[in-house]
Amino acid sequence: MGAALALSLRARGRTAPNPNVGCVIVSDGRVVGRGWTQPGGRPHAEAMALAEAGERARAATAYVTLEPCAHESPRGPACSDLLIAAGVARVVVALRDPDPRTDGKGLARLAAAGIETVTGIGESAARGAMAGFLARQALGRPHVTLKLATSLDGCIATADGESRWITGPESRAHAHLERSRHEAILVGRGTLEADLPKLDVRLAGLEDRSPRRILLSSRAPAPDGWERIAAPQEVAALHGVDHILIEGGAATASAFLAADLVDRLLIYRAPVLIGGGVSALGDIGLSTLGDVHGRWALSDRRQLGTDLLEIYQRVRS
Amino acid sequence: MGAALALSLRARGRTAPNPNVGCVIVSDGRVVGRGWTQPGGRPHAEAMALAEAGERARAATAYVTLEPCAHESPRGPACSDLLIAAGVARVVVALRDPDPRTDGKGLARLAAAGIETVTGIGESAARGAMAGFLARQALGRPHVTLKLATSLDGCIATADGESRWITGPESRAHAHLERSRHEAILVGRGTLEADLPKLDVRLAGLEDRSPRRILLSSRAPAPDGWERIAAPQEVAALHGVDHILIEGGAATASAFLAADLVDRLLIYRAPVLIGGGVSALGDIGLSTLGDVHGRWALSDRRQLGTDLLEIYQRVRS
Repeated sequence: MGAALALSLRARGRTAPNPNVGCVIVSDGRVVGRGWTQPGGRPHAEAMALAEAGERARAATAYVTLEPCAHESPRGPACSDLLIAAGVARVVVALRDPDPRTDGKGLARLAAAGIETVTGIGESAARGAMAGFLARQALGRPHVTLKLATSLDGCIATADGESRWITGPESRAHAHLERSRHEAILVGRGTLEADLPKLDVRLAGLEDRSPRRILLSSRAPAPDGWERIAAPQEVAALHGVDHILIEGGAATASAFLAADLVDRLLIYRAPVLIGGGVSALGDIGLSTLGDVHGRWALSDRRQLGTDLLEIYQRVRS
Repeated sequence: MGAALALSLRARGRTAPNPNVGCVIVSDGRVVGRGWTQPGGRPHAEAMALAEAGERARAATAYVTLEPCAHESPRGPACSDLLIAAGVARVVVALRDPDPRTDGKGLARLAAAGIETVTGIGESAARGAMAGFLARQALGRPHVTLKLATSLDGCIATADGESRWITGPESRAHAHLERSRHEAILVGRGTLEADLPKLDVRLAGLEDRSPRRILLSSRAPAPDGWERIAAPQEVAALHGVDHILIEGGAATASAFLAADLVDRLLIYRAPVLIGGGVSALGDIGLSTLGDVHGRWALSDRRQLGTDLLEIYQRVRS
């Protein structure tokens, strides 16, 4: 399932509104097929993996990060039917599909065909890997990641507004990898006017994965090639966007936090003190220390050159 | 030498103006004596370790974090003479003593008596363990540690000034341990008036190690039991203080940083966002990003409950 989850991440940011699923087919202890949802949503992961496995799928085990779909469409047959036709013996699923067109029907169809099914293996990791699809299903909006690049004292720029660069090249390369896993990136008017950022993915082999560019502004017109929303809540209306990355600046970050629309924090922190610079955040609507605790849980921490990257998830009860 | 360095840390904060030395005596692969500079400076580490070893010191190896002294005083004989009289065969030293009364004379006296000497083992760690003594010798001032307890966005309090508590109980216990390793703690007038902090060590068994309390203020009188300095540079005049801990607030921290008087940063960071709170620092005299890089090197990082402690050392060329 770990391998299937890694495959699902390859598809993240390119399959909305379809889930980014990963699938691995194992026969006699060997991987005979691997698949992940293709850009735009088709073929599905199971179809791709079964095509690679061919006859070797017979009596094999399929590991899938999401319950195989039970609904046919003009674009292809249901994956549960494909797995039955291929003759697999066992299907291991990380997460039941909340989409009402499937939601248990895929598993039931497999079981009715005599296939052994197991559910819940790697469920927590699968929730992270397919967070955008799940946020759309559960909340009707994209999964929102806020990126901050700060000094040790929480500044995102000097008092004069200089911000290039606080963090080092390893952090900036990682941030570009993160961009490639989002359908859209959003900045506020201040960042747009100060930097006119390209917001593209400048990593060899991933240049074609640059996300859509969104401006948060109630008034300013969006430049050519940009889209605009007037308030954080409007991310829900961005069709085809299941993952959105908020890149700055402080007012924009604070607006999303104040609306409690941030699900994940990426904090790149450089070993420098700036002192009296631009703070990462303004008011986010929390006035007492009783309010601030218990909202964020660390999910990853890694060294990037001399910087530290920490990833936090919003704790929602 | 690792054991000797650990012993030297026991004495840190209690021996000024004497160095906090550690000593271990090993005979036939067994530790037969252990010593560390006692409060007030006497007995020295070697004298304590030799007293424990007794006859077993003959032909043994002594590991000492600092070159044994060559100067007698009314309070006791020179340690190099004690080692010669005890009949040790070998003396391993981490660091040559910069005190002009010794500065190589201790090693020379040992060698003249036919004792094998080795210098430089664990030198870097010894520089850290005896940082206060070395700062006094080299710079004529104490070693200065700045403590910051911040949120992820670099705030030390809410907009209303609430700061108890941002960090958790594990961080606060560690901060009390740090207090016990300093001869003095300093705060500014704002912190004094807002909190009237006790600045004592509230750890079982270490209650007697509460440091002297210093107020940084050009005007305000010091409360009973406190001392006062008017500017960061005046730490040099605090007799008997080789290690000083700066505990707050932002103006005081910034004044020490602006004077480039901070040698070590302790940053306790809690997994919370405050937003629009009190920033850890004000202006510290660095105006461009070119100025801020390369000044701080990470020396330790550890998890304390849900908080992260990072320790940085000032890089001085």
